[in-house]
Amino acid sequence: MKFERSLTVEWGDCDEAGIVFYPNYFYWFDCTFQAFLRSKGLSQRELRSRYGAVMPLVDVGATFRSPVRYDDVIVIIAEIEEWAARRMRLRYVAHYGERVVATGFEVRAWALLQEDGGLKGASIPDEFKALLSQQP
Amino acid sequence: MKFERSLTVEWGDCDEAGIVFYPNYFYWFDCTFQAFLRSKGLSQRELRSRYGAVMPLVDVGATFRSPVRYDDVIVIIAEIEEWAARRMRLRYVAHYGERVVATGFEVRAWALLQEDGGLKGASIPDEFKALLSQQP
Amino acid sequence: MKFERSLTVEWGDCDEAGIVFYPNYFYWFDCTFQAFLRSKGLSQRELRSRYGAVMPLVDVGATFRSPVRYDDVIVIIAEIEEWAARRMRLRYVAHYGERVVATGFEVRAWALLQEDGGLKGASIPDEFKALLSQQP
Amino acid sequence: MKFERSLTVEWGDCDEAGIVFYPNYFYWFDCTFQAFLRSKGLSQRELRSRYGAVMPLVDVGATFRSPVRYDDVIVIIAEIEEWAARRMRLRYVAHYGERVVATGFEVRAWALLQEDGGLKGASIPDEFKALLSQQP
Repeated sequence: MKFERSLTVEWGDCDEAGIVFYPNYFYWFDCTFQAFLRSKGLSQRELRSRYGAVMPLVDVGATFRSPVRYDDVIVIIAEIEEWAARRMRLRYVAHYGERVVATGFEVRAWALLQEDGGLKGASIPDEFKALLSQQP
Repeated sequence: MKFERSLTVEWGDCDEAGIVFYPNYFYWFDCTFQAFLRSKGLSQRELRSRYGAVMPLVDVGATFRSPVRYDDVIVIIAEIEEWAARRMRLRYVAHYGERVVATGFEVRAWALLQEDGGLKGASIPDEFKALLSQQP
Repeated sequence: MKFERSLTVEWGDCDEAGIVFYPNYFYWFDCTFQAFLRSKGLSQRELRSRYGAVMPLVDVGATFRSPVRYDDVIVIIAEIEEWAARRMRLRYVAHYGERVVATGFEVRAWALLQEDGGLKGASIPDEFKALLSQQP
Repeated sequence: MKFERSLTVEWGDCDEAGIVFYPNYFYWFDCTFQAFLRSKGLSQRELRSRYGAVMPLVDVGATFRSPVRYDDVIVIIAEIEEWAARRMRLRYVAHYGERVVATGFEVRAWALLQEDGGLKGASIPDEFKALLSQQP
């Protein structure tokens, strides 16, 4: 199951060197994940109301291969790389035309909101896994 | 001449109160201006190479009427409200469906890059005014 | 009553032209307001728990006089310019050394959180006014 | 050689869940690197004028251990973990009080600006290594 989203690199996303200020890649990875949820009828709010859950980030990374500049339209492809009992690993590949400009990953945990406002790790519901794994 | 652009409000654009963190509206106004330039075959880089010019912000403002939340798609309509000799004033109206959620403006000056890296105010070229005023 | 806060302009705050990307000024105004609350033993969370209130932005603006660059340390001075029954107006002046680089304002309303998650405008409590008006 | 910088988590840095929106950690890592350069009398501009060089990011990552909230003051400790011929690896540890809240790394390359605006990888000058390795 792959999910794809295109994004325009904006003037304010670039630094003085004229290339993307790198934390923005993670903003785009996160945006792509949220859009992926949306494409399945889900959202952070829906996860909270349906499952009482949030999905905090545990581990993230990115490798930058080629600079992109403002006005460039990039396409980010997200893919679920692995399901663990309490975590999922997403892989992202950012393309500018044919060229891969960056790759990255996010490991997101499943955590239940406790009455005191705290979080407690829990197994990812099969229903959620099934929803995200469905072919569109 | 009106120019229109739609934007998705992202998870990372909202604050703890669950509504847009307001400086993002100005990011969106700026994005809309850059896309407006793009729609006319222009860009910040083109302004620099063609005219040796940049367009620094002089005065900006916004009024917020109604909150928007993440996953909302808003439409921003930009319009040139006034040309002065050395400045232009843009007006922005952000809609969520039928509802106006925010309005704002930007006054942008025309400045020529000097050899020492400084800036010097100058008259806006007629060619630039004509380009931006063209019906699409 | 004036409140002062210094901030370093960071690499990621500047755009390709090497000057501050302007929406960041509003981020800094907001940061200064939050620090002002903090200096009075308050915070957004305290406002919510003590008064059931939030302070949404109604109207904001800024005027930019002089560019600042990365590594510059600027000082922002906040001042309450006006109390209305349901709103307060804050004025901000940003200095780089002796030079005023930008001025701005925020009009913030007082709103009570309703049970349905909505907001309802209300009068600002005298206690809050007194707290913010105290000399340090 | 360790370099330390403290930062306040701001209202606008947090998302609807009330915790830091994670791309901000990379913004803080970058800020810490820039402040590290500054502490040695260097900056991105100095690198460019002295060596004709920039230091693009190649590889980055972070692990999040514990949530931080707005108004929390965190301390980030940067350390050069490894020098390769054309790259350096920095390690970051973010603390909130005694607690480690996140760790991360950045691999930065050394690249010379070419006449056509492109970049070409090159060996890191010994002088630069010596400057950054000096005890304060």
